[in-house]
Amino acid sequence: MPGMTAYVGFSELCSPKKGEYVFVSSTFGAVGQVVGQLAKLMGCFVVGSAGSKEKVDILKSKFGFDKAFNYKEEHDLDAALKRCFPEGIDIYFDNVGGKMLDAVLLNMRFHGRIAVAGMISQYNLDQPEGIRNLLSLVYKRIRMEGFTVYDYYHLFPNFIGLVLPYIREGKMAYVEDTAEGLENGPAALIGIFSGQNVGKQVVVVARE
Amino acid sequence: MPGMTAYVGFSELCSPKKGEYVFVSSTFGAVGQVVGQLAKLMGCFVVGSAGSKEKVDILKSKFGFDKAFNYKEEHDLDAALKRCFPEGIDIYFDNVGGKMLDAVLLNMRFHGRIAVAGMISQYNLDQPEGIRNLLSLVYKRIRMEGFTVYDYYHLFPNFIGLVLPYIREGKMAYVEDTAEGLENGPAALIGIFSGQNVGKQVVVVARE
Repeated sequence: MPGMTAYVGFSELCSPKKGEYVFVSSTFGAVGQVVGQLAKLMGCFVVGSAGSKEKVDILKSKFGFDKAFNYKEEHDLDAALKRCFPEGIDIYFDNVGGKMLDAVLLNMRFHGRIAVAGMISQYNLDQPEGIRNLLSLVYKRIRMEGFTVYDYYHLFPNFIGLVLPYIREGKMAYVEDTAEGLENGPAALIGIFSGQNVGKQVVVVARE
Repeated sequence: MPGMTAYVGFSELCSPKKGEYVFVSSTFGAVGQVVGQLAKLMGCFVVGSAGSKEKVDILKSKFGFDKAFNYKEEHDLDAALKRCFPEGIDIYFDNVGGKMLDAVLLNMRFHGRIAVAGMISQYNLDQPEGIRNLLSLVYKRIRMEGFTVYDYYHLFPNFIGLVLPYIREGKMAYVEDTAEGLENGPAALIGIFSGQNVGKQVVVVARE
């Protein structure tokens, strides 16, 4: 499902072209790491954000991202994005919403596309943060679309056709975070919301 | 140009279908009145908002809107929209942004479409208002797109082909607000931002 979400949001909704500038937030999540690799394989310039130096290093070394930054260490997300994208962003795959989305809107290029798979930064707030830079949608003719993979299962064969060769050729990597035992499930779930997981969070109930 | 803007945003970007629920803000502006009439001619259920009782009455009597409300008299825009759209909104043609957009997001239906032609409520603010309900984009799989008519001039023949018969048959009405003399231009311009104009604001420099 994470792989399909990545495929639908990036390849189908954002119509990427070779050489375009792509930003993926929460890049170390199960969806983000696939989006970033699909974008690299398409010949895009890809930047990711994650919540620790360890994750940022893996994004660049293991996944081959062009740049990556630790959003927890950046006091000014707008400045971080301008540093990584002096030419601006063509495609933003949004997993987090909130302040990151607001900063991205300031850095989008004309005719940019934003696929919104989730807004994890907002789920546990009493009141969601206000997004102030939506005027960019008009000034820069941007399309922004929320989606869920459940509407696109008919595209599963296309997804498999695209991804399976890459996996067989070792061109796609995958990182999972395994919690052993059901008793560790609740802590693993809570950890997702503070970025504790390194890749897809899996809970192994029993190894047999 | 206003007619083309209406056509592009509504007919091209929002792919309207007969029977869908359509909301147009700032309906008495040059763009809004055309959007509303195109939607009615397509067999949609159409609601508009305007800033005076006089305008609201004309929307219903002259333009044949299904419902209309005076946004200046509604303390709770969310409640006003729920009253007009108990089933929710399929298409929102946004001319104003801000609080109206935020309330609309709460009332969109699944797979809704929002065309953003402008956000006039935000242009003269030191800091734009925060939009808090963007999570609806994900929950309801909504597409939101900013656009400008300049990108769509190649569709001018389609627009003329659609609209000219309606105008000839008297099926489309138009309201203009005329300021006489260049000396009245500045006040007319300022009036647009407080909703003083009744329809397209025109300044007649000389009648000859």
